[in-house]
Amino acid sequence: MMSSEETAQVEVRRIGDSTRNSDHDVVAVEEPLEIRINCKPIVVTMRTPGCDLDLAAGFLWTEGIIRHADEIQSIEHCSSSDSGNVVTVKLAQGVRLDPSKLERNFYATSSCGICGKATLDAIHQLVEPIDEVMPLDAQVISSLPDRMRRVQTTFAATGGSHAAGLFDMDGSLRCLREDVGRHNAVDKVIGWAIRGQSMPLTNTILVVSGRTSFEIVQKAAMARIPVLAAVSAPSSLAIEAARRFHQTLIGFCRDSRFNVYHDPGRLPTD
Amino acid sequence: MMSSEETAQVEVRRIGDSTRNSDHDVVAVEEPLEIRINCKPIVVTMRTPGCDLDLAAGFLWTEGIIRHADEIQSIEHCSSSDSGNVVTVKLAQGVRLDPSKLERNFYATSSCGICGKATLDAIHQLVEPIDEVMPLDAQVISSLPDRMRRVQTTFAATGGSHAAGLFDMDGSLRCLREDVGRHNAVDKVIGWAIRGQSMPLTNTILVVSGRTSFEIVQKAAMARIPVLAAVSAPSSLAIEAARRFHQTLIGFCRDSRFNVYHDPGRLPTD
Repeated sequence: MMSSEETAQVEVRRIGDSTRNSDHDVVAVEEPLEIRINCKPIVVTMRTPGCDLDLAAGFLWTEGIIRHADEIQSIEHCSSSDSGNVVTVKLAQGVRLDPSKLERNFYATSSCGICGKATLDAIHQLVEPIDEVMPLDAQVISSLPDRMRRVQTTFAATGGSHAAGLFDMDGSLRCLREDVGRHNAVDKVIGWAIRGQSMPLTNTILVVSGRTSFEIVQKAAMARIPVLAAVSAPSSLAIEAARRFHQTLIGFCRDSRFNVYHDPGRLPTD
Repeated sequence: MMSSEETAQVEVRRIGDSTRNSDHDVVAVEEPLEIRINCKPIVVTMRTPGCDLDLAAGFLWTEGIIRHADEIQSIEHCSSSDSGNVVTVKLAQGVRLDPSKLERNFYATSSCGICGKATLDAIHQLVEPIDEVMPLDAQVISSLPDRMRRVQTTFAATGGSHAAGLFDMDGSLRCLREDVGRHNAVDKVIGWAIRGQSMPLTNTILVVSGRTSFEIVQKAAMARIPVLAAVSAPSSLAIEAARRFHQTLIGFCRDSRFNVYHDPGRLPTD
């Protein structure tokens, strides 16, 4: 098998009870990406190469640095970098970069009150609750992980990458992205929508391949995604965030079953 | 079931093909932890409460901020915080806090050369290769994930937490920690060793419940752990890092089988 930008072939020894074989294996590529705004380095994230411009756009949006697609004047790989691992963003004239937005790790450092509630309060200032009341079809929800799995080519090759998929309410796939980082996969999907001028993502369902943490729910909320379904478990703060933002939060969506951790009336109750 | 510090009980609707039940479920708690050094906030990490002092100590070590246990004069929960989510570290007299150490995201921002190699070069300045040549027993390696699973109580209750376990070469468990964040589980194990005066962690095997990324390999290398075994896949940069630091890197360690992605002569070759 040949390597691509997203995967690499490596040598491996496979060891079993009484077997030892030398073989080749395919792994997901992990490389750093540096995002610069107006020439200033903002962050380095470890990601799987591919869709880097989407990743950068999505990151800026979900971190609250931009709020409209037209706040980006240009976004491109740095032409003087031969690694392809630097993306430079130029903000549109008049768009100011608020340095405090770059310190998300510190958003809840009010003297000694740091807790989930303080964190939610801080994000709440950026996110209005999502009050779309479109009805959800339980059978569509159940089918989404399988639909996503069919196109997870990096996962199929490596067993080692996360995926995020954006679906319409009828279960049609709009965008699928894979990455070694869950948060990157989500940012890539959202960045795809930003660059395609389809924000906000009303009437969509975001499916993630793993667990849901606070960060994933927050990123979805920043993009106004009303429904989040995960193949694995949510954390306590993911559930609190979904309640706060009026999102439907589904977990353990697998084998034609799922758990609803929060739903403001979108799913039938009978 | 009662909630503990690490888990919380929540209401859930379980939806199957033709069933809808209201029930209770148990999820892993996620809360922010702020770490302060000499009163200065350094980082906020989203973690599962418990073993916070270990987490803080491990974080400072694996980020290269401290290099000896006695560089910590005191480490405690902030007494004026009622949330329990702030840990304050006092460094010993004469220990200087290098602000550049706090900017790990920027360690590879040499003009335009950012790539996996630059990242490894930067870390390499902090980490000497690990040249222990103790022999490894393949049957012991195979048994580790099951041994770990038996004591993963948070995972058993929630299905939603990562684990890191530190084992002796004969497969005895020295320390097991669970957390919503993989990197936190690893930092908690390493912090446990720092606070118990058992650094460096020569002659040990670190087992992680999920994938191995660059960050996990790097944290293990900072603690001088020679062998890393994961239940799931490594990334390309995890393998490159293990090569660089002379660590044995094992993946897909499950069902009495495992893959060896790098080994500098510790495993028998026949």
